[in-house]
Amino acid sequence: MGAQEPIGKVYLIGAGPGDPELLTVKAARLITSADVVLHDSLVGREILRLAQPSAEVIDVGKRAGKKLLTQDEINSLLVAHAKRRALVVRLKGGDPAVFGRAAEEIAALRSAGIACELVPGVTAALGAAAAAGISLTDRRFASQVLFTTFSRQEGNAIDWAGLSPATTLALYMPGPDYAEVATRLVENAMPEELPCVIVSNIGRREQQIRWSTIGALAKEEKLPAPALMIVGHVASRATQLAESLWPLLRSTRGRPPDARSISVI
Amino acid sequence: MGAQEPIGKVYLIGAGPGDPELLTVKAARLITSADVVLHDSLVGREILRLAQPSAEVIDVGKRAGKKLLTQDEINSLLVAHAKRRALVVRLKGGDPAVFGRAAEEIAALRSAGIACELVPGVTAALGAAAAAGISLTDRRFASQVLFTTFSRQEGNAIDWAGLSPATTLALYMPGPDYAEVATRLVENAMPEELPCVIVSNIGRREQQIRWSTIGALAKEEKLPAPALMIVGHVASRATQLAESLWPLLRSTRGRPPDARSISVI
Repeated sequence: MGAQEPIGKVYLIGAGPGDPELLTVKAARLITSADVVLHDSLVGREILRLAQPSAEVIDVGKRAGKKLLTQDEINSLLVAHAKRRALVVRLKGGDPAVFGRAAEEIAALRSAGIACELVPGVTAALGAAAAAGISLTDRRFASQVLFTTFSRQEGNAIDWAGLSPATTLALYMPGPDYAEVATRLVENAMPEELPCVIVSNIGRREQQIRWSTIGALAKEEKLPAPALMIVGHVASRATQLAESLWPLLRSTRGRPPDARSISVI
Repeated sequence: MGAQEPIGKVYLIGAGPGDPELLTVKAARLITSADVVLHDSLVGREILRLAQPSAEVIDVGKRAGKKLLTQDEINSLLVAHAKRRALVVRLKGGDPAVFGRAAEEIAALRSAGIACELVPGVTAALGAAAAAGISLTDRRFASQVLFTTFSRQEGNAIDWAGLSPATTLALYMPGPDYAEVATRLVENAMPEELPCVIVSNIGRREQQIRWSTIGALAKEEKLPAPALMIVGHVASRATQLAESLWPLLRSTRGRPPDARSISVI
C-alpha cells in the first residue's frame, strides 16, 4: 500500500436532539478520541467541546439558510480527511439514518474504499416525545408512527392520505408557516380537531413546548427552529391533564378517564 | 406531608438496542445512581451491571412467552417503589415512546402524584439501520419511514396500504413466521421484489443481518428474536454492492450506478 492509500475510518454519528447527555456513550467516546470532527451547524458547542484541543473541528453545515458547503463538497472533504487522519467523526444532529443524508456520504466513502461505521443516535421525534411526556405509539390511541417531512419545493409528493388517525405523524422541520402545515394536513384527510404538539430546541435550555390542534395551528405563535411537530391523538395535553387531575377526581384506583372524551384546550 | 407521601421520582429510560455503549450518557448516569431498577427482560446483563451493588434490580418483563407480571402489576410496583425510594429507574429496551407501553406507566405514576421523566433512547429501527449501514430515508429511494408492527391476534388492522414504496417500513417484532409477514406485506400492496433486511440481536455479539426481498422471505432461515425488519428500496444490499464495486467499475468520480437497476442477492 502506498502513502496515498486511505488510512482512516469515518464514523457517521448521531449527536441526538441537542442535550449533550443524550449523546450515546459510544458517540461521546468517539468524539473525545477523534482526530477530525466534521459537524452540522445544529450540533451544539457543549458537544463539540468534548473533542480534544488538538482535533480539527469543522462546521460543514448550513447556517441561517446560508449553505456553507454542498453535499458533494462535504463528501470530498470526508474522503480527504480519511486519507490523512485515523479517526474521522462526521457528526449529525439526531440520528444519521433519519433525514440525515447519511446515504450520500456512505456511498462516497465506500466508493473511495474508506471504512465507515454508523453510530445511531436519539432522533428528534424521540427527544420531542420524551420532552412532551407522551408515547408516540400510546396503544390507547395509536398503532404506529410515521417519521416524515415535507419540502416547500413543488413536485414533492406527500404520502399521508392513506393513513388512519391511528397513525401518529412525527413531522420533521415543520418550518415557521404553521398555516401551510395545517393546510397540508387537512388536504391529506387529517381532521381539524386532531391534536398536535410542537417542541422547539429539544433538550436544550431554550426548549419550548406548544400544545395545539390542526385547526388552531395557524394562529399559534411560531417557535424557533430546530423544531419537530407531533400530530395525532397521542399529542394531547388532555391526556396529561386527565391524568394529573385523576387523584383529585376519584379516590379509588382504576383506569383514568378516557382522554378522548375531554376537550383539548 | 405525611410519611405516606411519595418521595421518589421515576425515570422511564430507553436502554437502546442492546449494546451498552448505545445507552445515552444520561441513561448510564441514572442507572448508576438508581436505588431501584425495574427492567424488561430484553435489557442485557452488561447494562444492568451498571447499577450499584446496593440497588434493587427487578425483572418485570416477559421471558420466553411467560408473562412474569401484568402491566397493572408493573404499574403498581413502580408506584410502590417510588413511595419508598428516591431514584427509581424503569428501564425499557429501545426507546420508551416507541412500542414501549410507556403511556400506561406514565398515567399510573401521574395518577399517584409521582414525578416522572422520560429519557429517550436509540429505538431498534435506528440500531438496525446503523448495523446494516443504510439510511431509512435515503433520499434516492425514500421520503419517509413508518415505525410499525402487527399483532397476530385477529382484529388488529394493518394500516400500510395507502403508502407508496417511497415509504420505508420499520417492522418491529416481525416474529418467526416470515411467510405470514410476506403475505401481510403483499396483501397491503407491497411488490414481491421489494427488498427487506432483518437484523437480529442488534448491536449484540450475536447480531445477524439477513438481506432478502418480500418474495424470498418465506424461504429465509429464521433469525432469533429480538429482531427488526426494514422493508423498502433502502433495504437493499445492492446499493452497498454497487458502491463497493464502484471504484473497480469506473476510474472517474461521479454518481454511483443506480442501485435499482442491479438485482438483489
